[in-house]
Amino acid sequence: MEIALLKKELAKKNKELEELKIYESEYKVKITTGYLSAFIDLMHQFPELRIPTNDGTRLMSASTDTVWAKMICKYFQHGDKALNIETIRSRFTSDKEKPNTKYRPIRDKDKIFKIVSNED
Amino acid sequence: MEIALLKKELAKKNKELEELKIYESEYKVKITTGYLSAFIDLMHQFPELRIPTNDGTRLMSASTDTVWAKMICKYFQHGDKALNIETIRSRFTSDKEKPNTKYRPIRDKDKIFKIVSNED
Repeated sequence: MEIALLKKELAKKNKELEELKIYESEYKVKITTGYLSAFIDLMHQFPELRIPTNDGTRLMSASTDTVWAKMICKYFQHGDKALNIETIRSRFTSDKEKPNTKYRPIRDKDKIFKIVSNED
Repeated sequence: MEIALLKKELAKKNKELEELKIYESEYKVKITTGYLSAFIDLMHQFPELRIPTNDGTRLMSASTDTVWAKMICKYFQHGDKALNIETIRSRFTSDKEKPNTKYRPIRDKDKIFKIVSNED
């Protein structure tokens, strides 16, 4: 009986793993060393983008900031180094006016790129 | 004996799952309905970005295109709909000059945003 239960549990876990692995990538996108903040600055701009032809509706909306940190750590690396989730999380805040103490804002010198409307 | 082996296997799978789940997000970023292509167009621009102060070095490089499709399907949704990996994969090609037959390029009307250097 215990064997049957264990086998069932194992099959369930294997199925869960299989589903998650669809999205696993052997290779990450490599961000050029020294430009991680410039990249994160682009991520900060994403939820601010407004569609010019659509009454200023946002292009996208995230109900939580954590999703950006998770995405960055999963699919990007800084030079040859993997990214640490806590470090990346500290670069995001849900409220830039009242950030928590761990928040590390992007310095102006790292704001290298900006996303603009093609109409401009 | 079989029980011990099954338990060991189960523990291994649980550990694998636990590690993957660090990056799982309950909430995805919602792309405004009708603007999925505009968003993908921004993703296309990413690997083309060159650092203006660094002899034109790229901001990032991806050794495979699949990583973008996986990232998009995992962390984004189109309105309330989950994204299909094959559909998103068809929007990426490693060679825009000689794309494979499944490739669906971004139409000009969907190229709403562009990423520019802050110096411009």
